[in-house]
Amino acid sequence: MAGYDQTLRPFLWRAERLHPAQEVVSRTHDGIVRNTYAEYGDRTRQLANALEDAGIEYGDRVGTFCWNHHRHAEAYFAVPNIGSQLHTINPLLPAEHIQYIVENAEDRLLFVDQSLLEPLEAAYDPEAFESVEQFVVMGESVPETDLEPVTDYESFIGAQTAEYEWPELDEESPAGMCYTSGTTGKPKGVEYTQQMLWSHTMMTLTPQGLGIAEDDVIMPVVPMFHVNAWGLPFSTTAAGAKHVYPGPSPDPADLVELIEEEGVTITAGVPTVWFGVLEYVEEHGADLSSLDQIVIGGSAAPESLIREFDDRGVEVVHAWGMTEMSPLGTVAHLKADLEDLPAEERYEKQAKQGLVVPGLEFKVVDDDGEEVEWDGEEFGELYVRGPWVTDSYFERPEANEADFEGSWLKTGDIVTVDEDGYVKIVDRAKDVIKSGGEWISSVELENAIMAHDDVSEATVIGAPHEKWQERPVAFVVPTADAELEEDELHDEIQAFVADDYPDWWTPDAVVRIDEVPKTATGKFDKKTLREEYETESLLEDE
Amino acid sequence: MAGYDQTLRPFLWRAERLHPAQEVVSRTHDGIVRNTYAEYGDRTRQLANALEDAGIEYGDRVGTFCWNHHRHAEAYFAVPNIGSQLHTINPLLPAEHIQYIVENAEDRLLFVDQSLLEPLEAAYDPEAFESVEQFVVMGESVPETDLEPVTDYESFIGAQTAEYEWPELDEESPAGMCYTSGTTGKPKGVEYTQQMLWSHTMMTLTPQGLGIAEDDVIMPVVPMFHVNAWGLPFSTTAAGAKHVYPGPSPDPADLVELIEEEGVTITAGVPTVWFGVLEYVEEHGADLSSLDQIVIGGSAAPESLIREFDDRGVEVVHAWGMTEMSPLGTVAHLKADLEDLPAEERYEKQAKQGLVVPGLEFKVVDDDGEEVEWDGEEFGELYVRGPWVTDSYFERPEANEADFEGSWLKTGDIVTVDEDGYVKIVDRAKDVIKSGGEWISSVELENAIMAHDDVSEATVIGAPHEKWQERPVAFVVPTADAELEEDELHDEIQAFVADDYPDWWTPDAVVRIDEVPKTATGKFDKKTLREEYETESLLEDE
Repeated sequence: MAGYDQTLRPFLWRAERLHPAQEVVSRTHDGIVRNTYAEYGDRTRQLANALEDAGIEYGDRVGTFCWNHHRHAEAYFAVPNIGSQLHTINPLLPAEHIQYIVENAEDRLLFVDQSLLEPLEAAYDPEAFESVEQFVVMGESVPETDLEPVTDYESFIGAQTAEYEWPELDEESPAGMCYTSGTTGKPKGVEYTQQMLWSHTMMTLTPQGLGIAEDDVIMPVVPMFHVNAWGLPFSTTAAGAKHVYPGPSPDPADLVELIEEEGVTITAGVPTVWFGVLEYVEEHGADLSSLDQIVIGGSAAPESLIREFDDRGVEVVHAWGMTEMSPLGTVAHLKADLEDLPAEERYEKQAKQGLVVPGLEFKVVDDDGEEVEWDGEEFGELYVRGPWVTDSYFERPEANEADFEGSWLKTGDIVTVDEDGYVKIVDRAKDVIKSGGEWISSVELENAIMAHDDVSEATVIGAPHEKWQERPVAFVVPTADAELEEDELHDEIQAFVADDYPDWWTPDAVVRIDEVPKTATGKFDKKTLREEYETESLLEDE
Repeated sequence: MAGYDQTLRPFLWRAERLHPAQEVVSRTHDGIVRNTYAEYGDRTRQLANALEDAGIEYGDRVGTFCWNHHRHAEAYFAVPNIGSQLHTINPLLPAEHIQYIVENAEDRLLFVDQSLLEPLEAAYDPEAFESVEQFVVMGESVPETDLEPVTDYESFIGAQTAEYEWPELDEESPAGMCYTSGTTGKPKGVEYTQQMLWSHTMMTLTPQGLGIAEDDVIMPVVPMFHVNAWGLPFSTTAAGAKHVYPGPSPDPADLVELIEEEGVTITAGVPTVWFGVLEYVEEHGADLSSLDQIVIGGSAAPESLIREFDDRGVEVVHAWGMTEMSPLGTVAHLKADLEDLPAEERYEKQAKQGLVVPGLEFKVVDDDGEEVEWDGEEFGELYVRGPWVTDSYFERPEANEADFEGSWLKTGDIVTVDEDGYVKIVDRAKDVIKSGGEWISSVELENAIMAHDDVSEATVIGAPHEKWQERPVAFVVPTADAELEEDELHDEIQAFVADDYPDWWTPDAVVRIDEVPKTATGKFDKKTLREEYETESLLEDE
């Protein structure tokens, strides 16, 4: 029986042999670089030889501190294929997180972009970086730097032969690693086995996943340090499709140019990117005719974005996932029997996080562990399990205790599922407000309040309450021209919410603030607010 | 790390939850039966309860002796999902093979179609069938039969509840079993684990595999006793697509009616079936507009078949696989850069066995174990390995020794690979003629000889030869109106072959016979010829 192990190696082999002339295109500081799969394969094997010469062995971790480009894509296959572990590091994290991550992962070698040398140097700490034996700067030369020993990538691989016999790896071999940039506590390391990455890759190719064919042209705008750019470098290679990497800090003009020049068919990134692109296109015009799909994840895409691209013939496909899930779990394809819905109803479906992909299982459970109805109303916490979902964090038994239950990953997302099976995130588990045995979505309440003309931003948190367990408190930033005193604001918001929601959703307190504090990734930082305000005391004033 | 186990269970769960109204359609003796996925799921769980009540446990084998219908499709999920092993038995095999298979597999329960009771009764042998504790006839009643104890399927599941908690299975759990109906020796059992079937299913969904979307309507004409109907019942469910089962002995009119009435988009079967359909369509006309793809496997589809369907807007997709491979390994999709080829050149590509699918690896090696060039000319034996390729036969160590080499399955197929990566089978390893260190394709030589106007059928085998190791001997059936003596035939064929092939390809002997002996599956039975004729002595006469 058995069946041979599931590893990434056959994907690269197939791409090279079946599609040797297919391209890996990369925008760099020095212009566009084009390699064929034949060249990509050769360079990847040169890199494998260089890594072995540098003493990298089975199970060792190799860190990358890089944007999206061809050299990073070479590391994506060379590092796991020799049996070592590709550890992508988010260069936007605070220095202390970077230190923690490098120390915790014990990276033996670090690839770093020229443009990211500065933040890496700023984060450098001899103790935390003790395991790092070699820095490799992604380029053809090494700028002035304190990091050492250091070499440039082209010298690193240049002296090596392109002959290399990939080892036969066990599918349980470690292949990748990525840390979740949690809003609370230290980042948690998630390790990916060969099998997890193989499974995720196969799923993304299916029409129920992203549906990637050999004549597709894939441009991941989502950074390659964010959960393997949602797996796209692996998927693109497995499909034999064309890679397009937008390089360091692409602006909307760069992205539009790449779409037009390279004929991009599928691209992916967070909503912010696409707002920028849309604005650019509206101002300057653009030929988006090659583009079939924009895959959006990271945070919710508003219906307006979906509509605007739909009007331009581009389908916005919402997807949801987590670092713990390699990352994709749901994709908001429109089901065949919903295609004739009026546009607004279609957009509503497409603005949800989507339909579970084949191979995964999920359940949505309430406080008592009971599964909720699929009615688009009841909500509970989303639990998932599947071949590309991890079952533990790296060296974090206390986090495992909290975030896993049997075979299930507790996602920490509070969701509804509608009759058609579309999952919609309504809150984070730690933010949902538990009032008198019922749950109030802080996100929904925030959106309701932000709909008020005098409100620029608002966030809502649950404050401890003796009788009700928790009650909502709203923090509101009025618009510049709003002329409301704090008391008036309070009454106005309460009345405004009461118009559309049950009484018990109305915030017990409304606090006027100048700005909502934000996390490193731009999300509302409720933790800081909770620390800053004694929320319980706010309620006592009521 | 880890990742949750790969099993079939989530495919059924997803289909039921996301597509409860999608249909499983089945042609039966009593007309068309329609179940929704909701009903299919319920009936599958009823069957699971019935199997447990019948004492079927983890690892037990459950045999099926059935055509393609909804009840068989229910067994496809119920049997593996409870941890037992679905053993599909080919009812067309000789009785002694059926006896051997049932005895070797130790089937504890046998599902049998009403229309197949007779061959099962004929094969019944108390000793070989000693392990069988229960017969279940697929239907609502039990006809007169000697088999016992026996019940009908609807009674078997009817008393059961549709509540059932599927167990959490390890991906290494046995899930399926199928015997290769080898032309030589006893059938060899191939076991499928949950992981093998999961992997194969995911691959079939990809555009590089068969590309199955939720709005597809899939009709497997390939029997469900032939390697899980090429995996289609699993794939269709995983995609959330509509199943159409053509039932017992469908004739071309039945198939065309199902295509028209049910809107079939993808169907699959051996070439013979499609010749029949084509003939029917030419005579009676038909609306094939729903049909996108006919997947053809089992034996080579001639270009004429591909052309005729192409003219009707239906793509014939050639695929190749083996029982040992769950079964698919290559699919002859036209590569994007070949789409503009002239029709004849396209057909030539499409008539090959195809491109390797993602996740598999292969190599083609000559007698010295060296890999041959991908030039469409050099040929060697095809070796494959991958997650859905077995690494051994059931209880057949001597066959394992012969058919596996390290992690590779030696397919026994002699192939060429062209510059574009298309694999083409030119012979079976046991039939290729090894002459003076070079190989002669017996199949190509047969086709060359059959192109002669006076030849109705021909087969070529290698006869032992002291100097050259082997030399070709042709067995020729002249056409009814051919007026050639054996001597003339000999000279004529030699001259005819010499026109197009090198000298050393010319058969050393040409034997006139009345009929080429055939195997149970209709292939030329060279084994019988080798036994019947002292081929070495034929050469001595030269």
